[in-house]
Amino acid sequence: MSEINSDTIDDRIRLSFARQGAMRTLGAELTRISQGVVEIELPFSEKLTQQHGILHAGLISTTLETACTYSAYTMIESDVSLLTIEFKVNLLSPGKGERFLFRGEITKPGSTIIVADGRAYALSDGPAKLIASMTSTMMAVRGREGISG
Amino acid sequence: MSEINSDTIDDRIRLSFARQGAMRTLGAELTRISQGVVEIELPFSEKLTQQHGILHAGLISTTLETACTYSAYTMIESDVSLLTIEFKVNLLSPGKGERFLFRGEITKPGSTIIVADGRAYALSDGPAKLIASMTSTMMAVRGREGISG
Amino acid sequence: MSEINSDTIDDRIRLSFARQGAMRTLGAELTRISQGVVEIELPFSEKLTQQHGILHAGLISTTLETACTYSAYTMIESDVSLLTIEFKVNLLSPGKGERFLFRGEITKPGSTIIVADGRAYALSDGPAKLIASMTSTMMAVRGREGISG
Amino acid sequence: MSEINSDTIDDRIRLSFARQGAMRTLGAELTRISQGVVEIELPFSEKLTQQHGILHAGLISTTLETACTYSAYTMIESDVSLLTIEFKVNLLSPGKGERFLFRGEITKPGSTIIVADGRAYALSDGPAKLIASMTSTMMAVRGREGISG
Repeated sequence: MSEINSDTIDDRIRLSFARQGAMRTLGAELTRISQGVVEIELPFSEKLTQQHGILHAGLISTTLETACTYSAYTMIESDVSLLTIEFKVNLLSPGKGERFLFRGEITKPGSTIIVADGRAYALSDGPAKLIASMTSTMMAVRGREGISG
Repeated sequence: MSEINSDTIDDRIRLSFARQGAMRTLGAELTRISQGVVEIELPFSEKLTQQHGILHAGLISTTLETACTYSAYTMIESDVSLLTIEFKVNLLSPGKGERFLFRGEITKPGSTIIVADGRAYALSDGPAKLIASMTSTMMAVRGREGISG
Repeated sequence: MSEINSDTIDDRIRLSFARQGAMRTLGAELTRISQGVVEIELPFSEKLTQQHGILHAGLISTTLETACTYSAYTMIESDVSLLTIEFKVNLLSPGKGERFLFRGEITKPGSTIIVADGRAYALSDGPAKLIASMTSTMMAVRGREGISG
Repeated sequence: MSEINSDTIDDRIRLSFARQGAMRTLGAELTRISQGVVEIELPFSEKLTQQHGILHAGLISTTLETACTYSAYTMIESDVSLLTIEFKVNLLSPGKGERFLFRGEITKPGSTIIVADGRAYALSDGPAKLIASMTSTMMAVRGREGISG
């Protein structure tokens, strides 16, 4: 078993995040990595809208799912990779805001099946507004080529 | 009650799709509109990848959710709008392919709650490969300003 | 608009729970009602097992969904009823225990769509063990005959 | 690898079903086993109701989840067991009827992760009415004591 070293974990997550074309395309930034919790922020852009000009529900889900996945990366050894099996998202309020915060947090750090819950918030003047919640199920994969990171 | 006219429906969906910044950013094309079924296609691009270089699960979901939503638009009157309440997606195979097809289809065309199911396929040489399935729940909204279309 | 009176709410929930043939069949007891939170407990019984002799995942879900629904009843007026639109449950650990606790809690008390989250625990000697999590989506229905309570 | 023999599969499923205290308590009957598809039927009973006197959404889910699980049992070797990781159900119409049919069908027969979809119908005079749809995710477990069957 590999040791779990927090510097290594941070580096691994930062490198992995940087390799995501999708996160670059959206303009998302990794803003917090701690044990079992990862946060991503996203400024609003017209590139990211649905037909009514607000943040697309699918992109809320994309960023929230990414935060959930990396929250799981904080709990696994460096030779383990994760596959997302499924997720479910509830859209609780419209995606209106200047900036959005996506927090993923581990609920069940199983050895094979890992479950994370996520919450997305719209940030403007005033208090953060909860806009979405997610549950995401991942599978830890050991020793399979080509999906590390 | 407004009449449901298929030309009008097609126009409404095409206009609405064209207003989605997210669909333009992804490079998605609306390829089929019929009663209760909508299809969207998406060519692979490095802009759309997760860390292993394949199509991001969140973007699979984004496009599939959009297909589900427009499949519901084929069944409602022109003065009704739809809000997505929640969706759940299962990632069945990796998003590897040159091109992807997303089909949304109405399962339950209720007057208030509408449920659609979606399937995503990777297209390359050989048969289409099922890569994801979705169930999406929407609410019909009548007479609320600013969310028509 | 009817007033929300906590005695009335408690009575309404207790009467409604008592009318559930399913809760009687399972042997479930309503153990806590507070603003936005309801708890139900269930002693283990061989009547409630799946093929390996532990609590059936479906019955974990049944009881957890009931706790989620009643947590929403604490937040609505007495002339409003609730329909469950959908729920999703993750089975996190096997349903092994002498007794089980199901807690439903409101996440989003919307005027039409209400979302609750639930957690189920196995109780034996030692700390409670998290065995399942749920997200449940309900719709508030006003003025429809025959579904009050 | 063990051979997949259809008599053996049928026997295994019938024996496993008979061991389920929950299915006996509900009064459910296994009515069809074929490759990738299992059906269960349930007569209405006042023992199974929610507060409005119709079939409890949780028990619809319990029986549908059981049908999904056994549909997966038709596709695995006899030394493999299945754990349900999660499921999601949409309640499409009220559970009113004299009798109910629950069909589980394999969507993705993976070697580790198996996904099934289910549909529940109310049966009375007239055509069957779709009352619920489900997606269920299971994990194949090999060589773990005490959960065979």
